[in-house]
Amino acid sequence: MSNDGSMNDHDLLALAIEQAELGLSEGGIPIGGVLAADGEVLGAGHNQRVQLGSAIRHGETDALENAGRLPASTYAKATMYTTLSPCHMCTGAILLYGIKRVVIGENETFMGAEDLLREHGVEVINLNSSRCKEMMNDFIAAHPSLWNEDIGEED
Amino acid sequence: MSNDGSMNDHDLLALAIEQAELGLSEGGIPIGGVLAADGEVLGAGHNQRVQLGSAIRHGETDALENAGRLPASTYAKATMYTTLSPCHMCTGAILLYGIKRVVIGENETFMGAEDLLREHGVEVINLNSSRCKEMMNDFIAAHPSLWNEDIGEED
Repeated sequence: MSNDGSMNDHDLLALAIEQAELGLSEGGIPIGGVLAADGEVLGAGHNQRVQLGSAIRHGETDALENAGRLPASTYAKATMYTTLSPCHMCTGAILLYGIKRVVIGENETFMGAEDLLREHGVEVINLNSSRCKEMMNDFIAAHPSLWNEDIGEED
Repeated sequence: MSNDGSMNDHDLLALAIEQAELGLSEGGIPIGGVLAADGEVLGAGHNQRVQLGSAIRHGETDALENAGRLPASTYAKATMYTTLSPCHMCTGAILLYGIKRVVIGENETFMGAEDLLREHGVEVINLNSSRCKEMMNDFIAAHPSLWNEDIGEED
């Protein structure tokens, strides 16, 4: 917490990690996302491939969906927190809505389209979370086919 | 129809237009999408911002969601049909899943991230549909705020 009681980047990434852990407890892929502005959560979510059979609800897009319809002015001051470097779809969603700041847990188990975010002026901050890496390393080792499906790779 | 009875690009775009018209009849934004492979429909959908309060179900992503979980090998031979040039989010979804061909109705009322698709080797074909342009021109004139919200623009 900051001195004024609002949540900082580490607090908000911790909420994204809670979302990933919730997904894991449901039998899903452990990736979570939180959309926040001014230190307050607008929406939180996690990958729903297993739970809902979804092809489009990744951590970030599920957070956007749960945040609901928002004006451009809200996205413009928002930060997307995600436990894992954003894939092309989630990167595109961030660009569509003009989100200017992305805080990620890690990019060692999967490198997303961070370069594209930066090319469009989005600030990308990697908090290098050992918990995020551990969750994904364990999950990928246990369920390689499911992971490949989620990132559109041949098995 | 082709001589063998399978649907060609014009037939499949016509199905995407039907989806857009269905969306319009529901009070929604008239953009539709169809994911198809080997001349057969894998999933069809339309923008659900109004109907479901959705921030992530555009024409293309709703088609992907309705197609359900598919292996990379299926996406690799699929074409995405969409009534409108794909925004950054839908472009990212196409790139994530390795869809190699996109057929659009038009790109005059909105120019999406077609350059990014082409940079990644995706073939983009514009069928220049007057019906698609008419639907979007009429909709944008009648509901400019809703349209701006859907493309993440300030009102």
